[in-house]
Amino acid sequence: MTANTASVGILGATGYTGVELLRLLADHPSARVACMTSERYAGQPIVEVFPHLVGRDLPLLRQLGEVDLGGLDVVFGCLPHGTTQAVLGAMPRGPKVIDLSADFRLRDPDLYASTYGQAHGALERQRDAVYGLTELARPEIRKTDLVANPGCYPTAVQLPLRPLIEAGMIHLDQIVVDAKSGVSGAGRAAKEGSLHTEVSEGLHAYGVSCHRHTPEIEQGLSDAAGEPVLVTFTPHLVPMNRGILATIYLQLKGGLVAEDLQAALERRYRDEPFVRVLPYRSLPATRHVRGANLCLIAVHPGRQPGRAILISVIDNLVKGASGQALQNMNVMLDLPETAGLGQAPVFP
Amino acid sequence: MTANTASVGILGATGYTGVELLRLLADHPSARVACMTSERYAGQPIVEVFPHLVGRDLPLLRQLGEVDLGGLDVVFGCLPHGTTQAVLGAMPRGPKVIDLSADFRLRDPDLYASTYGQAHGALERQRDAVYGLTELARPEIRKTDLVANPGCYPTAVQLPLRPLIEAGMIHLDQIVVDAKSGVSGAGRAAKEGSLHTEVSEGLHAYGVSCHRHTPEIEQGLSDAAGEPVLVTFTPHLVPMNRGILATIYLQLKGGLVAEDLQAALERRYRDEPFVRVLPYRSLPATRHVRGANLCLIAVHPGRQPGRAILISVIDNLVKGASGQALQNMNVMLDLPETAGLGQAPVFP
Amino acid sequence: MTANTASVGILGATGYTGVELLRLLADHPSARVACMTSERYAGQPIVEVFPHLVGRDLPLLRQLGEVDLGGLDVVFGCLPHGTTQAVLGAMPRGPKVIDLSADFRLRDPDLYASTYGQAHGALERQRDAVYGLTELARPEIRKTDLVANPGCYPTAVQLPLRPLIEAGMIHLDQIVVDAKSGVSGAGRAAKEGSLHTEVSEGLHAYGVSCHRHTPEIEQGLSDAAGEPVLVTFTPHLVPMNRGILATIYLQLKGGLVAEDLQAALERRYRDEPFVRVLPYRSLPATRHVRGANLCLIAVHPGRQPGRAILISVIDNLVKGASGQALQNMNVMLDLPETAGLGQAPVFP
Amino acid sequence: MTANTASVGILGATGYTGVELLRLLADHPSARVACMTSERYAGQPIVEVFPHLVGRDLPLLRQLGEVDLGGLDVVFGCLPHGTTQAVLGAMPRGPKVIDLSADFRLRDPDLYASTYGQAHGALERQRDAVYGLTELARPEIRKTDLVANPGCYPTAVQLPLRPLIEAGMIHLDQIVVDAKSGVSGAGRAAKEGSLHTEVSEGLHAYGVSCHRHTPEIEQGLSDAAGEPVLVTFTPHLVPMNRGILATIYLQLKGGLVAEDLQAALERRYRDEPFVRVLPYRSLPATRHVRGANLCLIAVHPGRQPGRAILISVIDNLVKGASGQALQNMNVMLDLPETAGLGQAPVFP
Repeated sequence: MTANTASVGILGATGYTGVELLRLLADHPSARVACMTSERYAGQPIVEVFPHLVGRDLPLLRQLGEVDLGGLDVVFGCLPHGTTQAVLGAMPRGPKVIDLSADFRLRDPDLYASTYGQAHGALERQRDAVYGLTELARPEIRKTDLVANPGCYPTAVQLPLRPLIEAGMIHLDQIVVDAKSGVSGAGRAAKEGSLHTEVSEGLHAYGVSCHRHTPEIEQGLSDAAGEPVLVTFTPHLVPMNRGILATIYLQLKGGLVAEDLQAALERRYRDEPFVRVLPYRSLPATRHVRGANLCLIAVHPGRQPGRAILISVIDNLVKGASGQALQNMNVMLDLPETAGLGQAPVFP
Repeated sequence: MTANTASVGILGATGYTGVELLRLLADHPSARVACMTSERYAGQPIVEVFPHLVGRDLPLLRQLGEVDLGGLDVVFGCLPHGTTQAVLGAMPRGPKVIDLSADFRLRDPDLYASTYGQAHGALERQRDAVYGLTELARPEIRKTDLVANPGCYPTAVQLPLRPLIEAGMIHLDQIVVDAKSGVSGAGRAAKEGSLHTEVSEGLHAYGVSCHRHTPEIEQGLSDAAGEPVLVTFTPHLVPMNRGILATIYLQLKGGLVAEDLQAALERRYRDEPFVRVLPYRSLPATRHVRGANLCLIAVHPGRQPGRAILISVIDNLVKGASGQALQNMNVMLDLPETAGLGQAPVFP
Repeated sequence: MTANTASVGILGATGYTGVELLRLLADHPSARVACMTSERYAGQPIVEVFPHLVGRDLPLLRQLGEVDLGGLDVVFGCLPHGTTQAVLGAMPRGPKVIDLSADFRLRDPDLYASTYGQAHGALERQRDAVYGLTELARPEIRKTDLVANPGCYPTAVQLPLRPLIEAGMIHLDQIVVDAKSGVSGAGRAAKEGSLHTEVSEGLHAYGVSCHRHTPEIEQGLSDAAGEPVLVTFTPHLVPMNRGILATIYLQLKGGLVAEDLQAALERRYRDEPFVRVLPYRSLPATRHVRGANLCLIAVHPGRQPGRAILISVIDNLVKGASGQALQNMNVMLDLPETAGLGQAPVFP
Repeated sequence: MTANTASVGILGATGYTGVELLRLLADHPSARVACMTSERYAGQPIVEVFPHLVGRDLPLLRQLGEVDLGGLDVVFGCLPHGTTQAVLGAMPRGPKVIDLSADFRLRDPDLYASTYGQAHGALERQRDAVYGLTELARPEIRKTDLVANPGCYPTAVQLPLRPLIEAGMIHLDQIVVDAKSGVSGAGRAAKEGSLHTEVSEGLHAYGVSCHRHTPEIEQGLSDAAGEPVLVTFTPHLVPMNRGILATIYLQLKGGLVAEDLQAALERRYRDEPFVRVLPYRSLPATRHVRGANLCLIAVHPGRQPGRAILISVIDNLVKGASGQALQNMNVMLDLPETAGLGQAPVFP
């Protein structure tokens, strides 16, 4: 630990994104967890909540009201949707903030209100927030004090799609996204629908045509297009803990073929350590990225002429949440972008 | 057991479709298993291969060459693809045959050859074969001696789609099918890709744009349309044993809305015991049909105008294989169609 | 449905034992569900809670206070532990009662109070209650109006052990039971510890030396021994929905060997349809009994002289709960004991 | 990479222990994979076999006969049981060898022959082999050129038991070990019994009283006791990929209680980074060590006086195989013992 070690706070450390941050930070050469909050478990060592953290030297859990966030270098917000806005309003300027909730992702306050069912509570901070899809917004992330960390589905969908939309290669009114997620995306709340008995050995769609991540995806694709884009987005719940796979069906513009998309994506992501375009017609699996800060992308031809299929996979807790948050911290603090993110995928 | 009890043979009884037939037949009031074959386990009682059959009164496993099929009322073919054709050629006419392999599903011998990589071996029988999607071909099934039992994916896709195509409600060049299957669809062969370690806790697509079930689906949809139809069909492997869920993306013809599809499907399947159209915007899960001979269908509006989404679920081993085979037997023998098929879904 | 059809009520129909009763009753030739209660979902059709019941003709869910239980032939109590006692106190005599909770399993009120943390609320009914391990108490079950249906672990442990203890074959102070259960044993309550994310891909022991089923097991073994017996009982939670496997370690009395246990158990269960002693040194799996009202038992020699190992498997929701309850109903009503219990195991 | 970087070879790199070594070595500061062999995939980049290795800079797979092992610093043997003996015979002295197979674990050639069904093929090397349970054999490991890396079950059993036996605290003729393992312990061979369909949603015991790891466990316990020890050891297969949990039932010597075992184990492992004795009566889960080089141990009192229960958990691929192998390499090369082994457990 040196003078250059960043002092980190985690608000809501006992959810899955919080505890995943702790896993990744264990390997970070220049960051140190200085404070962790949990309203429910305040006063306890976190190892009593998460026994797998045995042997880690971590501060006691504290209530949010008890801690002084002002002296920290970085604050990660891992609180439930709708609660970070109030916290940030009361927090001193100073620390860089990376918010993993949905609170600052949507620029349009009306869209936020209609999507999340409540008025936005910190509009003045919203104006400064940068949407932190790292590979596509590095310059802005470097300069801001508040990053809105993208949702898991939006990360898996925008990384392959935005470069193709920017290049004007696809029909904007024909985008179909069929996405599949593991159960940790629903968080650690004790809900009937997340019980092992209700989830294992089966599959279902949910939020058809109305999932909360749809406006977030559309905001990003519309930015890329320079015009409003609507997408058909259908999420499904799969009996596995981690992972998102998005299968994206596209209609190509005049004369283009799937290989053209392959070439465009390869060019765009050639030098990226965390986004990898696989050889044409590859079959990525979520288990190829389990535990790692990676997005794998594959391109396939459709069966009908003029159509193509993209497949992208991420670990929803890493590149889809805590890993990307750490990547954003590295950018904001001008650290090597891969610091603390060298974990190889865990297979089997 | 009475004079009216049908005498049944099962060729290839030690695969998953064979053993699932045995489970269902245990409840059948007027059928009796008279012979079962297995090249690998010939001479053994089947309980040594499948201990869960303990206590069942079943004949010894025999080699195909040893048994006299001529005296049976019904023969179920549960052999690997490409092998039933030769068997049927050598078999005496007499027993009704229900073939669960792909051998007789494709009417066009050239398409068969290009899809399965070998010339068709029993063209004269192919001409009489009826494609046994029960609800859509009862009159033909009643009259034939040879039913080609549909594939699992094709069952889940055609039941919701064919009535809508027949009614001319959807654009034929815009059909996208994103399908998800459990692992038993790959059979009981010892393959690396079906190991627990390779399949659990993850998800991947396979056969993108080139799965063998695509021509079978297209044959059925083209029949319904009266013109050639191509579909984009992407199967995915899900870490569960049983179940198929198909998410089907459609573009509606002139002014139609999703509710119109709902009404059309409700009308079509109103009196069917095994196909149920759920209330508009329902979310069927594969676990709702686990172990039962059911297909559940739901209709959803798309997010873009003029689009709709269908979701259908089946148990791939029941309505997608052995259950539908038994249903076809009942039709062929003029028995009550639900005989032996009253098992309720197993949940959890 | 005839004049001989039994009219059945299910109290607490929306838990897993209640809904499993509904699955099994679908096949019962002479019982009809006349009333179902649920405090939480009163007023709704049960298909809204359990979509897999689609197409079943079942009464609306009602509040307990609204229904008249007096006219029923049989009442199944599927309520949480500690609540049936009050219900029975207020209920008219008349219907046969089969209680699946723990409320009437322990004869000693002090032991009940110390195990379940509350005084017994219906001592006068307790005196008449028969502990319903069907194979071992048929005459008493036939005569009673109140059966205390055994717990899942106690069923798996007592069926193999009690005959051996009665025969004086084993040392009573050396019994070690290492048991493993699927997740449905914890019921449908939304608890963090039953989430897919917390349960899948892992294993742990719980209730070591202090699980609530220990006194129930010891009561049964002590009855068999005619003297007090203590057992070491360690349950483990396994990432599967259904199934219990008990591995039981024994020290044999003077000169006996494991084959002697095999012979004794074969003799005891020779004519039982639902308890099967497998060939010596068999390896039963929980998946061999999934969905079926079966207990499989295997006997193995220990490595040290004078020791033996028993393995028993059941489906905790069937022979460990609702299946045995139905079996008890059949005995109480003098119906064929296998009525409604012919379901073959579901594999894979 | 410096002059001090160890040059590492992996024989049989495409099994699960080989590929797990590659995951761990990705984090090792002073080791470099110089050569990897695979008879089946020779000539291919390993990423074609294991797509999750995308982006790793690794040598091509080669046939064993093609590579020069002499110039390496360390060779890891990840070959099937029975094949390393021949390889070592033909290999030049020089590299340190850590063998993950069973080939050099049993000191007694007769016991090896009867356990593994073939005569030992390299007796002269056997004499120098050190059994590499790191925490219990550091001085010998430091001096040897050949480590026999322990089996997964034997690691989970010996770490808690050997210190107690050495201290004379338990009755040697009363040790019962009930162990549960994930599926990766069976390796990557395409076997019917390891298919997802045959393994998931169920549980069974195997190798009762005759598993190959029993002699290995008994050798270690006998060494600790100074006299021959037999154990009852029952392994079970659990539907999860990684993890072993051993539940160990003990009879304590004269007047000792379980707390005495707790104190003895705490003393023994106080300074060990990879073996942690949890607070008395803790409930360790395999998911607490998933992906990490850890063994967690808990002590519980038995229900009967004078009895105790130990629970230990490891990840079978890490502390039970490749992690311990790397730990042994660190000891042999005089590197910090924790180098490359800092991965935190992956949860959920």
